[in-house]
Amino acid sequence: MRLHAHVNPASPLAAIFFESRIQAALPDGVALSFSASPEGLEEGLATAEVLLLVGQAPLQDLPRRAPHLRWISYASAGVEWLLQAGLPDGVTLTNASGTHISKAAEFALLSVLMLHNRLPHFATAQRAHRWAPQPVGTVAGRTVLVLGMGALGGAAATALARQGMRVIGNSQSGRPHPDVAVMTQGDGFRAWLPQADVLLIALPLTPATHGLIGRAELDLLPPHAGVVNIGRGEILDAEALAAKLQEGSLSGAVLDALPQEPLPADSPLWDTPNLVITPHCGLYDPAEYAPRCLDAFAANLARFREGEALHQVVDRARGY
Amino acid sequence: MRLHAHVNPASPLAAIFFESRIQAALPDGVALSFSASPEGLEEGLATAEVLLLVGQAPLQDLPRRAPHLRWISYASAGVEWLLQAGLPDGVTLTNASGTHISKAAEFALLSVLMLHNRLPHFATAQRAHRWAPQPVGTVAGRTVLVLGMGALGGAAATALARQGMRVIGNSQSGRPHPDVAVMTQGDGFRAWLPQADVLLIALPLTPATHGLIGRAELDLLPPHAGVVNIGRGEILDAEALAAKLQEGSLSGAVLDALPQEPLPADSPLWDTPNLVITPHCGLYDPAEYAPRCLDAFAANLARFREGEALHQVVDRARGY
Ligand SMILES: NC(=O)c1ccc[n+]([C@@H]2O[C@H](COP(=O)([O-])OP(=O)(O)OC[C@H]3O[C@@H](n4cnc5c(N)ncnc54)[C@H](OP(=O)(O)O)[C@@H]3O)[C@@H](O)[C@H]2O)c1
Ligand SMILES: NC(=O)c1ccc[n+]([C@@H]2O[C@H](COP(=O)([O-])OP(=O)(O)OC[C@H]3O[C@@H](n4cnc5c(N)ncnc54)[C@H](OP(=O)(O)O)[C@@H]3O)[C@@H](O)[C@H]2O)c1
Repeated sequence: MRLHAHVNPASPLAAIFFESRIQAALPDGVALSFSASPEGLEEGLATAEVLLLVGQAPLQDLPRRAPHLRWISYASAGVEWLLQAGLPDGVTLTNASGTHISKAAEFALLSVLMLHNRLPHFATAQRAHRWAPQPVGTVAGRTVLVLGMGALGGAAATALARQGMRVIGNSQSGRPHPDVAVMTQGDGFRAWLPQADVLLIALPLTPATHGLIGRAELDLLPPHAGVVNIGRGEILDAEALAAKLQEGSLSGAVLDALPQEPLPADSPLWDTPNLVITPHCGLYDPAEYAPRCLDAFAANLARFREGEALHQVVDRARGY
Repeated sequence: MRLHAHVNPASPLAAIFFESRIQAALPDGVALSFSASPEGLEEGLATAEVLLLVGQAPLQDLPRRAPHLRWISYASAGVEWLLQAGLPDGVTLTNASGTHISKAAEFALLSVLMLHNRLPHFATAQRAHRWAPQPVGTVAGRTVLVLGMGALGGAAATALARQGMRVIGNSQSGRPHPDVAVMTQGDGFRAWLPQADVLLIALPLTPATHGLIGRAELDLLPPHAGVVNIGRGEILDAEALAAKLQEGSLSGAVLDALPQEPLPADSPLWDTPNLVITPHCGLYDPAEYAPRCLDAFAANLARFREGEALHQVVDRARGY
């Protein structure tokens, strides 16, 4: 079984996915080749059956470049760019969904507590040297609407329900979750926007979720509501959000996923009132990420060799 | 039984402690007089056995002004200013310690999660339009040192332990608490400073706690540590803290209690890096505060009329 691991050196993950660590995670009998350059990738693809991919890489025209390839294991959760590259039908794609669960739960809790307790407002007031109390009750009993009830949304729902919040969930399937009071499906989330104290976006980026939350959806939220985005920047219309925050018709927002990353220094988002920006690291546990990811990969590799069905498989038709 | 209620109209609590609400909380047979002016206070004191006090008021020379007074029930937790006024020996003082428990638990959790997840750093980077990721693991297993294990500190310890943190407690007595791994007493907290990921101050202001945390104590914390103050501003040397934050020898701080309140617009604290200021409202639940406080007062009033020992009694020798 020939495995090639390619690490894009520009990815923040490059520091934690080094060759010896990948090698150590593998069972005997797996021949590993490793690359961190375009030439190395090309050479690896020529013979590999399995590609372990860390960070993005050019993957067009794979039937020609990688005639033996049957499986790509991508070491992050968001695969939208990979699907755009157009993978051959015979290649299975898996991702790292699930690796972020513990930090996602903590960051969702933190973001919702911050919004509920008006920390974005205090940060904005602090910049202006303004003492501007805005007391609120506890978060218990408040309603959070979670869009996307996969690994991230599910972990968030559990952490928030544990704090006494009422969680309304939304997914494609509407499958029930033990910590969700009401599950909605597809467009069904809209009816709940007027009751949401916080809207938490934990969706993958797909053609169906691109621009899903725009001005019309934000206008359905009550003015005291807050918005969190831990999914992808393109799902939320950040300009519409910024306009609402400027007007004061939303109380705050926490964005870990942004329309451009890194956010350019001249983006007006930096100075938008009541907006908290975390630079796409809120869900990332630097010590746990690679071990967890490689454990899951090794387990999948065992399945692959036994001819069993893989876990974390991306459904290309759905886009996640 | 003659009860006088005085509400200082300049107190933020004045809006929620209005005469009809106080009246409604009382049992039959209690004659209530009410004032919101210095003259009204004077008149009320002349005959009152019990004073329910909301906000600060001049209380010097009480033996002459209030010859029948036996009990002052103060509707906040911090009584340092009242003890400085010099109360007559025959007057019992009670406070509102315990009224803040639910919000104190939530705000302590929020503050510690913010510090651990470097939100103060992100706020400072945001002001400078800087994309500066600083990923960290989860808070589970981290150590928080809680100074003051009364109503606030105890509630904080429970919320933090529930998140998987190791809580080290400190109080005058060293009395054990179910959610604290190690209890320390008096000066015993110093030995734990080098192990603290977060230092949380939940002490009352007394002669013994005034300036308790200065440069020397802050220097014992590791450079990645954060500091929260939900007690009183005077307990922590804010200038020393600001210097440490400027130098980068502490990672952040959340101050709900400040050296001056409201903090003047020209205070350098507003622009201190990695410092989050919440304007002394983090522990205040505007809907629950008055009902809870008046419930506790009514229960104490029943004890008073039966000649039983009151709850929430302030020990004047200790100062809290
Ligand atoms: N901020 C970060 O650092 C960070 C970290 C990890 C991931 N992410 C992003 O978060 C995304 C989600 O990650 P995950 O691991 O939770 O993914 P996941 O486990 O695949 O879950 C995706 C969820 O979204 C739902 N969904 C998909 N399309 C939908 C639509 N059009 N309408 C309603 N619901 C829809 C799915 O519904 P069903 O349950 O019915 O299938 C599922 O519940 C990733 O794709 C990635 O882009 C960000
Ligand atoms: N930020 C806010 O909005 C807010 C709200 C409420 C209260 N506060 C402040 O927080 C303070 C504490 O409130 P609380 O209701 O928790 O008070 P509390 O129930 O009276 O508890 C005070 C705690 O501090 C300990 N302590 C006192 N002096 C000490 C010393 N020198 N060394 C070590 N430990 C000492 C006590 O030890 P023992 O257990 O041994 O007696 C006790 O555990 C109040 O006095 C008030 O100033 C602030």
